[in-house]
Amino acid sequence: MAQVQDELLSADLYDAWPFLSHSDRVEGFKLLSRAEAEELFLSLSAMDQVALLFELPQGERRLWMRLLAPDDAADVIQAAPEEERQGLLALLDETARIEVTALLAYAEDEAGGLMSPHYARVRPDMRVDEAISYLRRQAQEKVETIYYAYVLDAQQHLLGVVSFRELFAAPADKKVEEIMQREVVTVGEQMDQEEVSQRFAQHDLIALPVVDSEGRMKGIVTIDDIVDVVQEEATEDIQKIGGMEALDAPYLQIDFFRMVKKRAGWLSALFLGEMLTATAMGYYEHELERAIVLALFIPLIISSGGNSGSQASTLVIRAMALGEVRLRDWWRVIRRELAAGLVLGTILGMIGLLRIVLWPTRAEVYGEHYLLVGLTVACSLIGVVLFGTLAGSMLPFILRRLGFDPASASAPFIATLVDVTGLVIYFTVASLILSGVLL
Amino acid sequence: MAQVQDELLSADLYDAWPFLSHSDRVEGFKLLSRAEAEELFLSLSAMDQVALLFELPQGERRLWMRLLAPDDAADVIQAAPEEERQGLLALLDETARIEVTALLAYAEDEAGGLMSPHYARVRPDMRVDEAISYLRRQAQEKVETIYYAYVLDAQQHLLGVVSFRELFAAPADKKVEEIMQREVVTVGEQMDQEEVSQRFAQHDLIALPVVDSEGRMKGIVTIDDIVDVVQEEATEDIQKIGGMEALDAPYLQIDFFRMVKKRAGWLSALFLGEMLTATAMGYYEHELERAIVLALFIPLIISSGGNSGSQASTLVIRAMALGEVRLRDWWRVIRRELAAGLVLGTILGMIGLLRIVLWPTRAEVYGEHYLLVGLTVACSLIGVVLFGTLAGSMLPFILRRLGFDPASASAPFIATLVDVTGLVIYFTVASLILSGVLL
Repeated sequence: MAQVQDELLSADLYDAWPFLSHSDRVEGFKLLSRAEAEELFLSLSAMDQVALLFELPQGERRLWMRLLAPDDAADVIQAAPEEERQGLLALLDETARIEVTALLAYAEDEAGGLMSPHYARVRPDMRVDEAISYLRRQAQEKVETIYYAYVLDAQQHLLGVVSFRELFAAPADKKVEEIMQREVVTVGEQMDQEEVSQRFAQHDLIALPVVDSEGRMKGIVTIDDIVDVVQEEATEDIQKIGGMEALDAPYLQIDFFRMVKKRAGWLSALFLGEMLTATAMGYYEHELERAIVLALFIPLIISSGGNSGSQASTLVIRAMALGEVRLRDWWRVIRRELAAGLVLGTILGMIGLLRIVLWPTRAEVYGEHYLLVGLTVACSLIGVVLFGTLAGSMLPFILRRLGFDPASASAPFIATLVDVTGLVIYFTVASLILSGVLL
Repeated sequence: MAQVQDELLSADLYDAWPFLSHSDRVEGFKLLSRAEAEELFLSLSAMDQVALLFELPQGERRLWMRLLAPDDAADVIQAAPEEERQGLLALLDETARIEVTALLAYAEDEAGGLMSPHYARVRPDMRVDEAISYLRRQAQEKVETIYYAYVLDAQQHLLGVVSFRELFAAPADKKVEEIMQREVVTVGEQMDQEEVSQRFAQHDLIALPVVDSEGRMKGIVTIDDIVDVVQEEATEDIQKIGGMEALDAPYLQIDFFRMVKKRAGWLSALFLGEMLTATAMGYYEHELERAIVLALFIPLIISSGGNSGSQASTLVIRAMALGEVRLRDWWRVIRRELAAGLVLGTILGMIGLLRIVLWPTRAEVYGEHYLLVGLTVACSLIGVVLFGTLAGSMLPFILRRLGFDPASASAPFIATLVDVTGLVIYFTVASLILSGVLL
């Protein structure tokens, strides 16, 4: 019965974790059996692990830090406040400390920051049965995966790779170098994690070796870390597309004022940009006074530009992140979006024209020149949607070319850009069509 | 030399693949050596595999279809046009055909549709050394991974799991059932792929067994498929957040008119919704005529509501997709967003007020009552941003509650919703503050 309760507790605690308060977590954690606590601890994010560590008595922290693989320990130390990092590092034993210190030299978001130095290795001149029993000994230590064994020379140069399965299937007296694959897909120490994840996606492997510029093996990145990377990168992009800085913590857990700060920055910048609409409107105040009917369609027209721009920028940002579209493809994209913008603008223009011309009380609401007003709205829509589509699809290219993140070409950013231009387009079209009639 | 050229060709072709025309792909593919062609073929998406297959002579198709693992063959068949599916299925040998037919019964986006029926298995009463040599034989067949061996009874019930590494590290004469883990994390046949990927993320495993309702093992899902699932789901969400239907094909490859259709639907729907702004504006035409200065700030105010709404909805949609926020958390979210909306609205309100009141030519541009106009704008901004934030954060909850995808609460959708309400808020505030002065 106690056993059953324990298991329930453990599963419940696991599921409820993201929603528990800090003190409830510590309470719950202390109630777990040692094995359950270990399992739960290892499954937490680095940030949660840090938070939990600092709630435990000093003496226990050592125990938990030593449970972590070197790459995870490095993540925990990087997630801890600056002033606590040395203290956490000191809790590790000497070997681990040296390994973790080496890992800490890499940025969190590059291959070196993701890798584990614990991989399975064999020598090229070993026989298959020797290699298998050598791996058997390594399996008892802390290697990250024994699925691939890396073939290294005495200077740690990566000569080839042999999957466990190939070793297993090979005759016992063959040499490793006879069965190893010599063309190995590798990643560089400083390669960005997004590129690393694209390489995983291309090659369908479960681990990739990390090598330095001289081809010496430094560690492996395993695919379970890549799933986290892919989720993280997608979350960052989605939040940027939504028009804010990426939050870097779960929504319900991030400190309220830190979240507001990340939203207020972009919101204020967009607001300042949008102020140009007031300036533009001031410029057309005269026209508005003479034909107040024009004011009615302002939100409709500028928002259509923003919406079509948001579609285009979102498509291009995502295609870039997936590696489907590269900088040099801008010309192919511009041709596609030119055509798409024309088609979409014409569709909206037709709907707008019909809505005005077929409205039962058209002459009352839009005046006697309702047909011309309708034409003005329709032509403006074509222009605005075309401009929105082009701006939305090209801004990510421009941002990337300038070294910024293309995902910053958010829906709100494009909308703001298009709002000002949309007003100019609208009033220009109006002055062309309505001049001498209403204006 | 020929060897070097071959390798260059293979690597180039691989990188260039997404950007090549159909015929260039087929050309390039035919130039590859058999081994390279196999590697390239296996790395392609199901859609690309289908396209390539139909360019090859009938006789060769059989060869390529038989190269595929059953889960991949099922994907290819699902990606092919309806009328070709039987033909492709007929190319497989009988065992594969039976397996693939079983897989085709599952939807593509559920666990059964992702799984492979080829997994490594052992019996509970085997000794460790027997199990290892039994796995050695399986490694020569087509098992997806031998990293985990599943312990099954005669009726295929899943009793436990033992990792390869544990078998390797264990004494040779122990029984499998003595060292296996009995608590196995499993997924159900019909579990949605998004849930499956969350389970992978929680448990840091490289494969999960799929069981039916009676606990019988059906297959395994491996983590390399999950990376694809995670990317796919993020792409769908991003495109929906951008205000369109998910494209279901890479941007540069999707047929132009199919893409336009997926964009035009939402764009037209949003346009029809946005028409309400013209109606609302018509309602306030009288006020506008008397105080044309109010028109100047319309784009500024409604776009601020849209931007803040876009931030809130994006945050909530992503947090829901990651399982960080559940339906029953709506009350916690509403409290956070109420506070965030007030703070953000006040910040924008202050900026707006200062901009109007401190502008050098304020009296000329905004008239003698510029202070009251500034107050109207500031108060409207607070109201509009607060409303945008609440609408943006609650709409994903409402959509999910009604059984729709919360990601449909796109930035443009929220903006359209907020535009109409924003106008009402603005003119209501104006009539309160400016009544008797300008109105």
